[in-house]
This record gives sequence, C-alpha cells and structure tokens, in this order.
Amino acid sequence: MAKTKRLILCGFGNVGRAFVRLLDDKRAALAARYGLELPLVAVVDVGGAAMAPEGGLPVDRLLDFAAAGGRVEAFADWGRAGWRGAAVIDNVPADILVEATPTNLTHGEPARGHFDAALARGLDIVSANKGPLVLFYRELTDRARQARVRLAYSAATAAALPTLDVGRVCTAGARILAIEGILNGTTNYILTRMAAEGCAYAEALAAAQALGIAETDPTLDVAGYDTRNKLLLLANNLFDLDLGLADIPVTGITGVTPAAIQAARAKGQVIKLVGSARREGRGVTVQVAPEALPLDHPLAGVNLSEKGVSYATDTMGRITVTGGHSSPTGAAAALLKDIIHLCAPPF
Amino acid sequence: MAKTKRLILCGFGNVGRAFVRLLDDKRAALAARYGLELPLVAVVDVGGAAMAPEGGLPVDRLLDFAAAGGRVEAFADWGRAGWRGAAVIDNVPADILVEATPTNLTHGEPARGHFDAALARGLDIVSANKGPLVLFYRELTDRARQARVRLAYSAATAAALPTLDVGRVCTAGARILAIEGILNGTTNYILTRMAAEGCAYAEALAAAQALGIAETDPTLDVAGYDTRNKLLLLANNLFDLDLGLADIPVTGITGVTPAAIQAARAKGQVIKLVGSARREGRGVTVQVAPEALPLDHPLAGVNLSEKGVSYATDTMGRITVTGGHSSPTGAAAALLKDIIHLCAPPF
Repeated sequence: MAKTKRLILCGFGNVGRAFVRLLDDKRAALAARYGLELPLVAVVDVGGAAMAPEGGLPVDRLLDFAAAGGRVEAFADWGRAGWRGAAVIDNVPADILVEATPTNLTHGEPARGHFDAALARGLDIVSANKGPLVLFYRELTDRARQARVRLAYSAATAAALPTLDVGRVCTAGARILAIEGILNGTTNYILTRMAAEGCAYAEALAAAQALGIAETDPTLDVAGYDTRNKLLLLANNLFDLDLGLADIPVTGITGVTPAAIQAARAKGQVIKLVGSARREGRGVTVQVAPEALPLDHPLAGVNLSEKGVSYATDTMGRITVTGGHSSPTGAAAALLKDIIHLCAPPF
Repeated sequence: MAKTKRLILCGFGNVGRAFVRLLDDKRAALAARYGLELPLVAVVDVGGAAMAPEGGLPVDRLLDFAAAGGRVEAFADWGRAGWRGAAVIDNVPADILVEATPTNLTHGEPARGHFDAALARGLDIVSANKGPLVLFYRELTDRARQARVRLAYSAATAAALPTLDVGRVCTAGARILAIEGILNGTTNYILTRMAAEGCAYAEALAAAQALGIAETDPTLDVAGYDTRNKLLLLANNLFDLDLGLADIPVTGITGVTPAAIQAARAKGQVIKLVGSARREGRGVTVQVAPEALPLDHPLAGVNLSEKGVSYATDTMGRITVTGGHSSPTGAAAALLKDIIHLCAPPF
C-alpha cells in the first residue's frame, strides 16, 4: 500500500525545478520501490505560489509552463500572486517542507521564516538551503527535536556526495576521529588546473570562470567560505558541536602559488583545500585551509570539480567517499533521497 | 528510554570474539547515542554454548575466559556442552541472530541451519557469513520477507567498506546503472605489488603469504571466487536479481603477467581485479575479471589491501566509496552497524 506524503516546495530556481522534474520522472519508481506517493501540494516562488491542496499539482504541466517562461503565481487554476512561503505553509496541509530558496548567510531569509512556519505546523524539513542551518544550527535542531520535526539537509552538505549519510549511517556505531573533506568543486578545479599546468591562481580562476565553473564573484568559493559552511554542518552534526561561522578559521586558496604546489610535489604531496574537524584530546580542532596531502591520501586523487570526504574511525578504519554530480539535478536527487529516508527508511 | 534487543551469537572465532569485544567496549556509547542495550543471551561455538536468558552473559568475563583458552561450553555457570546453534535459537528467547560461523560454500552449514531456526522463530538475522546467502539468496530473502524477518549482511559484503549502505541508502531514489568493485584485498595487494615492483605473480603472492595477507591456499582469493561471492550479493540485492554462483563468469589474477601490467601502464591504465554488474539494454552483465582501468577511474588509486566500490547512477553521477578495515574488528563493526540500523534507524 502506497504511503502518501504531501510536499510544499519553497524555491523554484534551478534546484527547485530539477526537483520537480525528478518527482515527475521518478513517480513510478518511487511507488514501485519505496511504496511512496509524493504529491506536490504547493510551489512557492518570489511572486507567489501555485497550490493544489487536493491531490497535488500536475507536475508535468507545471514544468512545461515554467519552461515556457511562466511563473508559478500565474499557473492555470492553481497560481495565486503575492502568497509567501510562510502563509502557504500555514494554510496548505502538508507533511514535508522542501526548502530550495537561495541561501542567505546574513539573516537566513526567506528560508528562516519557512523553517519557523514548518516547525510550528509540525512539517518535516528537507533543505538544500544552508542559510538558516549555518546561522542557527543549535536553535533549529533543538526546536526540531522538541517539535518532533525531522530536519534533513544532505542537499546542503555537498548534495549528491553522501557526506552525512556516510558519517551517520555507514559508520553507525563507530566513533569518528576525524573528518577531512574536499567540499568545494570550484576551488578543487582551480587547484587541479594549477597543479596540472603550472599556471598561476589568477589564470586558473579565469579558466574556471570561462567554463562557468567559477562565479563572476568567486569569493564564496575561493575564500573557503562554502567549504566552511558545509564543514560547520558536518562537524556540528557528527561531533554534536555548536560551532558558529566565527568558530572556524578559514584560509582560502587565493594565496596558493605555483611555487608552493611545485614544492609540495617535490615532497610527493598535492595541495588541496581541506575542511577538517579532528578530535584532539578532549576537543575538536576545526579549520579550512590548503593542506599538502601525501599522494596516497584517499583525497589526493580527487581532481577537477570532484568532491570527497574521508572519515577516520576507531573500529572501521578510514572510509572515504568521492564523487556525486555537482548540478541542480544532483542537489535535487539529494533532496529526494532525504525524503525517501524519512518516509521509507531502507532497513 | 533504552530499547533492549537480545542477541544470540553463533560463531566464536576471530569475528565473533571481536564482536563481543565491541559489545563490551561500546556499551556506554550504544546507550547514549542510540538508546540501545544489546544483552548477549547466548554464544554458540563448535563444542556447545553459553546461555544466559535472563539479562545476558557478562561479556567482559567471557572475553577474559576465552583469552585464557576457555571454551564457551565450559564458561562458569552458563556453559553447556553439546548445545548446537539451532537448539539454542529454539530455546533461548532473543531478538537477533548474529551469524559469524565459518563460511561454507557447498552446503552453507552450519549457518544455513541457524538461518532456518531464526526464520522459524522470527529473529532478525545479521550475518557475516556469506555461505547461505550466496547459495540460497532468493529462497532466503523470500522467506525472510514472508516471515517479516529482516536480513542484513553488510559484514558479508566487504565488511567495514559500506558497499550495500552506499548502494541502498546513500543513493536512495537514484537508479544504479553500474556497480564496479575492488572487493578483495588480497588480490589487490598482489596486483599493486606487481605494478610497483614489476615482479611476477608468484613472487608477489609469496610476499603476500609471508605477510599473512594471502592464505597458504590462496585459491578463494586469487581465482576471483571471493570477489564473485560479494558481487553476487551486491548485484542480487541492488538489481533485484536471482544470480547463482554459476551465473557469474570469473577470471582470477593468476594469469596477469608483468608484461600485461607494463602494457597497460604504457596506455595510462592500471590492472585491477574488478567485480562488475552493468545494466546493458534490458539486462545486466555481471563478471569478475582483471580490467585495465584508466588512471582517472575512481578505483584506479585503490591500492594494496584496500577495497572500494563505485556506483554509476542516473541522477547523482558516480559515487565511490573506498577503505574500511579488513580485519575481524572491521567485520564486527559491520555486524554492529547492521544491528543499529535495524533497531535504531538513524533518520
């Protein structure tokens, strides 16, 4: 018998649309494999919402409409201009909030307000948005626990690369001693090009920008902030910490020189931007910095836009996972995965 | 409030003892982190059993007793000579069978009988033993489903390397297109030595034997059978197949020559023993064979005794996991992990 979970999606940009595409493409597979039906009862974007409390929106038509430039608030009988996320969550009965609005790292809005509304209504939350989680980690996880709301954010912690799953599920029962991650594809691409071609940082950055791999303003990536944000979530979750952004010292890659890369190579090492959290004594040392890894380190061969995370454990040794699409579809697949875990745990 | 699950352990060799050691070492962590108490109500070995239906055996004393050469059937007030696994399962109330007897690939005994008894009594089964699973996969999984018994076997599918977890949990919702695995540490060690030193197979084998990495009779490993056995379980589980041992063509590593390794290197490739299952058209092609992998293949850098598995998926791209202790403790940690998943799902 199929289990039905009603979804409200906030955010209809690249990730939100890719997610709706997956709901359409995967409908039969979700029913057959997991016994899951996931009607999309509302989609919220900046201008309003489309809502279908009874039975859900026709996602194939919604995708066609959006592909033709239509905005959700104008979608056939279901669009309503001016409706905001919190109002939709308050008024449309649902089971899960899927949060895919753009990340804001100053105040976390609009996602922060969506989280609040979902917590008040008892909706589980599956988020691709790092903002509220990074800014208010302890508050939100505490309130979620009290409200018996489950909070999943694979899509905010390197998306299709299963960082949290490996740290929580695959290593259950083991004690994690250290987390080391190449968590940002853009910086890894730049460092890989620098190492392969002997070129300067600025040149590799320009190449990455030309390919659309780096943003016009690359600060979030190259200063190490994106790595820090993901590391904060991993370290807080897996080590049960309460780190804020200011607690993690960050050195980006802008100061990495061809000479440093060459010197590392002469020692059999490769420079990677590593986000790390290592138990030392009774505490945990957390940082983001370029590190010279020996060539037999399991992250040393993670190149170009690939990401990876390596866990040192007490009883299982070191376990490393790499790969995962860095794309809206990869992030959407991580959202869908979290929903499956919450609704149809695979054990 | 703690959840109590009573365990019967069949098999008290290296893996069984390492598992009991973990129960002792991890008692506080299991209670604190997962709310789990796991009393060991019986341990069965070839000469009999130790049983403590009320409250469980004192595992610290049992370990000391065993370390001093004591056999379970002679353990203080709890030992009983002549009790076999099936009789213990029939008579000692319990929740989970932990199967850690030696693998038999002809008839699957004694584990097969333990599985039967557990299925009849409704005990969940967590197995490090490949025998019954490899020989009777479909029958056992069908019967388990009918009996509402859960069957977990991480420890039989590369142990601390989370092959099944990544294929079922981390990629939930994605469609796996191909499984490629370096699933046997001994053969990977031999191939790595051959590549590094240019030596012949026989020489690298002798080195591995001298280090205790290869058995005196290395057939199970070098002929590819161990890889095949793990691949069978992965392919059957993840692709919902009903493969038997005869359905998987196997080529081991005994025919790999230094010249072949050299020729591959000249083409920028490295030879690895790969167990693979790849969707092709409407079917799945399954085999074990030495393959020349390009150096940027995510398994190309898996060296010495390390293992790894790589999944190509539709929506998440390629996800690869490597590492995990190849040791009795690693296998025991995989047993414990499966128990945690069954009793305290981490979602």
